[in-house]
Amino acid sequence: MAKNEWKDDPSELLRATATFRLSEVDPDSTPGFEGDKGDAEELLADHAHELADWQERLFAESREGSNRSLLLVLQAMDTAGKGGIVRHVAGAFDPKGVAVTGFGVPTQEESEHHFLWRIRKRLPAPGIVGVFDRSHYEVVLIHRVRELTPLDEIETYYDVINDFEREVVDSGTQIVKVMLHIGLDEQKERLAERLDRSDKHWKYNPGDVDERMLWPQYQQAYQLAIERTSTDHAPWFVVPANKKWYARIAVQRLLLDALERMNPEWPAADFDVAVEKKRLAAS
Amino acid sequence: MAKNEWKDDPSELLRATATFRLSEVDPDSTPGFEGDKGDAEELLADHAHELADWQERLFAESREGSNRSLLLVLQAMDTAGKGGIVRHVAGAFDPKGVAVTGFGVPTQEESEHHFLWRIRKRLPAPGIVGVFDRSHYEVVLIHRVRELTPLDEIETYYDVINDFEREVVDSGTQIVKVMLHIGLDEQKERLAERLDRSDKHWKYNPGDVDERMLWPQYQQAYQLAIERTSTDHAPWFVVPANKKWYARIAVQRLLLDALERMNPEWPAADFDVAVEKKRLAAS
Repeated sequence: MAKNEWKDDPSELLRATATFRLSEVDPDSTPGFEGDKGDAEELLADHAHELADWQERLFAESREGSNRSLLLVLQAMDTAGKGGIVRHVAGAFDPKGVAVTGFGVPTQEESEHHFLWRIRKRLPAPGIVGVFDRSHYEVVLIHRVRELTPLDEIETYYDVINDFEREVVDSGTQIVKVMLHIGLDEQKERLAERLDRSDKHWKYNPGDVDERMLWPQYQQAYQLAIERTSTDHAPWFVVPANKKWYARIAVQRLLLDALERMNPEWPAADFDVAVEKKRLAAS
Repeated sequence: MAKNEWKDDPSELLRATATFRLSEVDPDSTPGFEGDKGDAEELLADHAHELADWQERLFAESREGSNRSLLLVLQAMDTAGKGGIVRHVAGAFDPKGVAVTGFGVPTQEESEHHFLWRIRKRLPAPGIVGVFDRSHYEVVLIHRVRELTPLDEIETYYDVINDFEREVVDSGTQIVKVMLHIGLDEQKERLAERLDRSDKHWKYNPGDVDERMLWPQYQQAYQLAIERTSTDHAPWFVVPANKKWYARIAVQRLLLDALERMNPEWPAADFDVAVEKKRLAAS
């Protein structure tokens, strides 16, 4: 087995099952992969074209009336590498076939609506791979930790989310939910780097340290969110992310698996190819 | 001068001025570039990172309140390579910073609104590079050739478009308008290739041959559109496109020029870096 290949399929290893415990996931680990950074970069590059090819098939299929699409939901503590996943994994797709939405602090208008209002508007169109950088899970994460919403209301949201995702899947959109899991020390190093580099200052927010102080509360909120919403139709995958190169190949593999299962095919011609060749030749 | 560099800036060479004649543009030519396909591929790869870097600055700036964005408008006859520009040129951007919109046949709802209605909804948000694959120009191209709208009404649209683009530019969005110019014979070869490959059948439409029969009328409609709407605030660039590799480096250069002129800078920290370093260290 070459070092630049998966030893075991990470999809099974990273999937959060009924007994999942976030506290037992080592953010330094690399489940299913025995290579190093260089091996991982090779693997990422080797499969980029395959990922783009699947996406193009999905797009092609949609032109002939299919309503299928794929949605990658990314959640994580600050600096865990959501942006790097978008750039280095989703960057392989043809830009016409991918739509990235960052869900920051809700606008005034968004706050006045149900929390799914802004989410529904950004669900991927047929043929498109949507990426959510943060998502509808914010209401059971920061809202829970910061007490932005009464707890008894938050307690109802897990079922609301499960029902919503069931509806989305039934409408033709496969969902892959990923939590990038970094450690407290690793986050400190990454925040320090942002402070050291003037071209990274815009990514730093003093509030990041405030959030960091609430690390245990956030881990608990993630634990609850994952155990209550890792369903058969929309499972969670918890990806160790202290090694950025591992997180990238893992998410790439999860997307490849999802697309392979969807197995979009090139649409058959809805015209007579021989006739068209003659018409073209005569033109 | 290395063969994999521009000999002359194509921006000036390709810009449609007051005396522009589409019939005088040779679709096989490579203005400003003396290298071959391999040289062009090197040049494209060499500048991909630079393009991504500018876009990230534009994005960063928008997080601090700037409302600037960039819009690339692509128009062309079928098979001219709009899709390849999106994939190979815009593919260099971080997916979070680019938004591609294809404007096909208007939906029923779109048809019931002003032709700019669907366009306005897809103008790039601050910090984003928008790409229009077809655009508001369809009303003075296919509508003119196919007589989908009364001619006297179409005659008023050129001014409407100029006013609209003035407004867009004044709102902070730079516009780069590109017509990819291929020849009639080259199109025949490319359509034949689509008919030969089953994975390309979905891109072929029998209507493509019908449109092809109206080649001179389309060239005339493009001539009128370009001469009437190539303004100082939103000039047209006509890019010879029989050689796909040339069209790609030319559009890349046009985007680089536009971003260099905009010159977005990394936002300065709006916090005290020393204080934050201490807070982080203590956390």
